[in-house]
Amino acid sequence: MWGIIATWRMAVEGISEASHILQEKGDAGDAIETAIKAVEDFPYYKSVGYGGLPNEEMEVELDAAYMDGNTLSIGAVAAIKDFANPVSIARRLSKEKVNNILVGEGAEKFAHKEGFERKNMLTDRAKIHYRNRVKEVREQEIKPYAGHDTVGMVCLDQQGKMTSATSTSGLFMKKKGRVGDSPIAGSGFYVDSSVGGASATGLGEDLMKGCISYEIVRLMAEGMHPQAACEKAVNQLDHRLKERRGHAGDLSLIAMNNKGEWGVATNIEGFSFAVATENQEPIVYLTKNKDGKCIHEVASQEWLDHYMKTRMAPLEEK
Amino acid sequence: MWGIIATWRMAVEGISEASHILQEKGDAGDAIETAIKAVEDFPYYKSVGYGGLPNEEMEVELDAAYMDGNTLSIGAVAAIKDFANPVSIARRLSKEKVNNILVGEGAEKFAHKEGFERKNMLTDRAKIHYRNRVKEVREQEIKPYAGHDTVGMVCLDQQGKMTSATSTSGLFMKKKGRVGDSPIAGSGFYVDSSVGGASATGLGEDLMKGCISYEIVRLMAEGMHPQAACEKAVNQLDHRLKERRGHAGDLSLIAMNNKGEWGVATNIEGFSFAVATENQEPIVYLTKNKDGKCIHEVASQEWLDHYMKTRMAPLEEK
Repeated sequence: MWGIIATWRMAVEGISEASHILQEKGDAGDAIETAIKAVEDFPYYKSVGYGGLPNEEMEVELDAAYMDGNTLSIGAVAAIKDFANPVSIARRLSKEKVNNILVGEGAEKFAHKEGFERKNMLTDRAKIHYRNRVKEVREQEIKPYAGHDTVGMVCLDQQGKMTSATSTSGLFMKKKGRVGDSPIAGSGFYVDSSVGGASATGLGEDLMKGCISYEIVRLMAEGMHPQAACEKAVNQLDHRLKERRGHAGDLSLIAMNNKGEWGVATNIEGFSFAVATENQEPIVYLTKNKDGKCIHEVASQEWLDHYMKTRMAPLEEK
Repeated sequence: MWGIIATWRMAVEGISEASHILQEKGDAGDAIETAIKAVEDFPYYKSVGYGGLPNEEMEVELDAAYMDGNTLSIGAVAAIKDFANPVSIARRLSKEKVNNILVGEGAEKFAHKEGFERKNMLTDRAKIHYRNRVKEVREQEIKPYAGHDTVGMVCLDQQGKMTSATSTSGLFMKKKGRVGDSPIAGSGFYVDSSVGGASATGLGEDLMKGCISYEIVRLMAEGMHPQAACEKAVNQLDHRLKERRGHAGDLSLIAMNNKGEWGVATNIEGFSFAVATENQEPIVYLTKNKDGKCIHEVASQEWLDHYMKTRMAPLEEK
């Protein structure tokens, strides 16, 4: 069996590429890196890699992580600027004995010395989004924190190796140096090849309050199906946050176990995700939480067409 | 009931100060911040705050975190330079709605704007350690990664509020920008006032592979005593790391539940910790792991005298 599951519609081209690698008995590390890079490289996705939206200083600072479920090795970068593929740097760091997480200038120095591709990740389109937002915020009090769409994936190869990886530009208009859950083991991602893996998207500041990716893997280790594990963990954290804080941020989780079974849960309307396995061509689903149960529906062609059209529509400066 | 527990002998003066606050019904946030600041301020502790050992570029980059067990609010800084009290900045960040974790230059900008005390944290003594190590490394292949002595604490006040906090200069000779477990929720620290809290010291790169502070709190939530929870989590992660990787880094954990009961476990020889509660004056213990059971002994006066003497002994340049 092989399989790969990912947060959001934007991941479907990447997981299609990864499927070919996995079909041909390729490695789960290569497959997941290829899939994430496809999302990082596409300029119209404004929350990951090239074209990602900038922080309050109009700098694109990126976070990414990689975990190997055989060795539990972790690599991550946070608040890194001007490199094309943060996930590849994270994967490279996972092979170091120590110094596996590097941030800011230190991460950039490492990436430079290792010869990773330099790229100014700030696109003209992202600049327009930035200037429009500055204008909006000036005109009325708008919360500058929409669009926290991290790409997070879990992958299983035919040799039984599992991996997990994430990549994001984080919250639009975040403070310089802000780090969310995506590069944080246990919160943004976790994987153990003897069990399965999970990855998160949503409000990083709330996701990390529950170590939710670790918790889902732990529930799967107790024998729970990925779907039940995701629902239990998301519903519990949502409840706990509301009880303690009066409100809960967006929490959306994907998971796959080492048999290729998968699950997804969310506390928002219309969370999209993409999945491919030995038995299933790459499909985009939409899901919603109805009284604690998450119901997945295959995205219609109309929805898919609309998605891409809005992402690529000309952007006017206000 | 009130109580406070901390990693390493170096914390005992700080927890004595905190005890007075807690005795007089002070807040667990104020108490733990006071205790950690005492460790940060003491120039002879070479792994935390002022006098902490520098990274490979001879810069002192510091990590710290704070968590409120009532609201689950988290604040953290990583790879921050030239501020006197990272833990205070972390606590301040825990009060923000988002942007709770800041790293590098972004963390420094925030701290500057908030008026936190500037201080060059590199002492002459730390410079001598650095130059001696550079010489040693040049002369023979020495692993540059000893002394990962994070101060981590868990605190309970008379109102039932619990907090956890950490502070560290990280691995001596680490790469610029390296982040360990200390500012990472679930790995370096975790606390929930309805259960208890835990905090870690040791090799951050390995501690985070098991989300071990979260796991201990989870085991306590299932009804386990802090001592049993610490032993189970440490022994399991030690075993898992050896099975998957052939070896396990240093793992030492402290925990306290919301009744003021505490526990400690380690996989190294002679881990020291300090604890004070309503029923117990501040005491330093030494612990060791004997076949999975951790046995704590009160540190002798001789050991305590020797400890301080070696910490403060004149340091010669080699």
